[in-house]
Amino acid sequence: MRPFVIVNCAMTADGKIAGRCRRQVRISSQEDLDRVKVLRASCDAILVGVETILADDPHLTVGGHPPERNPLRIILDSNGRTPDEAKALDSRARTLIATADACSRTWAGAETIRCGRGRVDLAALLPALSERGVKRLLVEGGGEVISSFFEGGFVDRYCIFLGSLILGGRDSPTPVDGEGFPDDQPRRLRLTEVTRLGDGALLSYEVLDDNTKT
Amino acid sequence: MRPFVIVNCAMTADGKIAGRCRRQVRISSQEDLDRVKVLRASCDAILVGVETILADDPHLTVGGHPPERNPLRIILDSNGRTPDEAKALDSRARTLIATADACSRTWAGAETIRCGRGRVDLAALLPALSERGVKRLLVEGGGEVISSFFEGGFVDRYCIFLGSLILGGRDSPTPVDGEGFPDDQPRRLRLTEVTRLGDGALLSYEVLDDNTKT
Repeated sequence: MRPFVIVNCAMTADGKIAGRCRRQVRISSQEDLDRVKVLRASCDAILVGVETILADDPHLTVGGHPPERNPLRIILDSNGRTPDEAKALDSRARTLIATADACSRTWAGAETIRCGRGRVDLAALLPALSERGVKRLLVEGGGEVISSFFEGGFVDRYCIFLGSLILGGRDSPTPVDGEGFPDDQPRRLRLTEVTRLGDGALLSYEVLDDNTKT
Repeated sequence: MRPFVIVNCAMTADGKIAGRCRRQVRISSQEDLDRVKVLRASCDAILVGVETILADDPHLTVGGHPPERNPLRIILDSNGRTPDEAKALDSRARTLIATADACSRTWAGAETIRCGRGRVDLAALLPALSERGVKRLLVEGGGEVISSFFEGGFVDRYCIFLGSLILGGRDSPTPVDGEGFPDDQPRRLRLTEVTRLGDGALLSYEVLDDNTKT
């Protein structure tokens, strides 16, 4: 058993989730921010990688929700690099930090879970999340984390908002980074929704079963 | 005076125009291929960079058109690396190879134009194309070439087909590579069309005027 996994992110019209400096750039329209708020509120947990924490320092909460109604915040942080003062550790919601087995760091504002040699093992983490009641998991990035989810066959839905701007950059981060899949083994999707949303476009996909999907 | 410039390409749902090996991968649906055929036929010239010639060896013609009705093929090739046996040099259409001033190579199947120190200078090439009667220019890639066009402010329309697949890869090519624009200077677009096209989606944009647009 694992949670239903939704990947959601915003990219430019040339496929970038940030510019060449990897700092957060406003890509979403207001209409998309409103949509993401509803999407977050519909999930039991929101997961990001530690690089996103270090680059953007997000709260990862649903604006206006009291702590008990906010989704669980999960940080994938194999080596325990989340700063103690990270906003995702504040009292607005509960937080779980997943590290590799070898990491012994603890945080005052978060529960920790150790799973995986060298790096967090998603195949072990996801059932553990299910056991804690996480039925719907929202993965928001960054590109390396999303790539790990696709690599393991753990993605059920992929939602991408395309903002109407171009950032360019051969080294700028994209929604799915990682090593990349072989040309003859792309992950196949089925387009379920194409909608204009403010000055951009929202595309939603179902991830088709393949031999990696679990 | 310069031609009206349309950039058209197909990318995956995660913003890649090819996989990590940079070889051509089928991203377009049949409906998109049909659309591109009509688009090509509506243009006076089709331009690609030499990397696209070396990687994909495309004909750059409109299927079924006789040579006199095919658009001019233009290859940006600063250092003259287009192979003599490239399909874009065959007799199906006329071909123009643009090189830097220092390149002296010639090709039996193509006219050459020298413009630019070190690399082809688009600000000089584009008026020269206008003088030769090119009113509508279609730029098909790759990501470095498209980046140069955006950098110079030479793009009027940007059309992107999103195929329903994920290729991933932090080093996979994207529609706009290059150095990337500063975070506070993205190129701004206006979304003019959002359409489902077969199993993918077509997004068309007008490029908004900025201080670089000429």
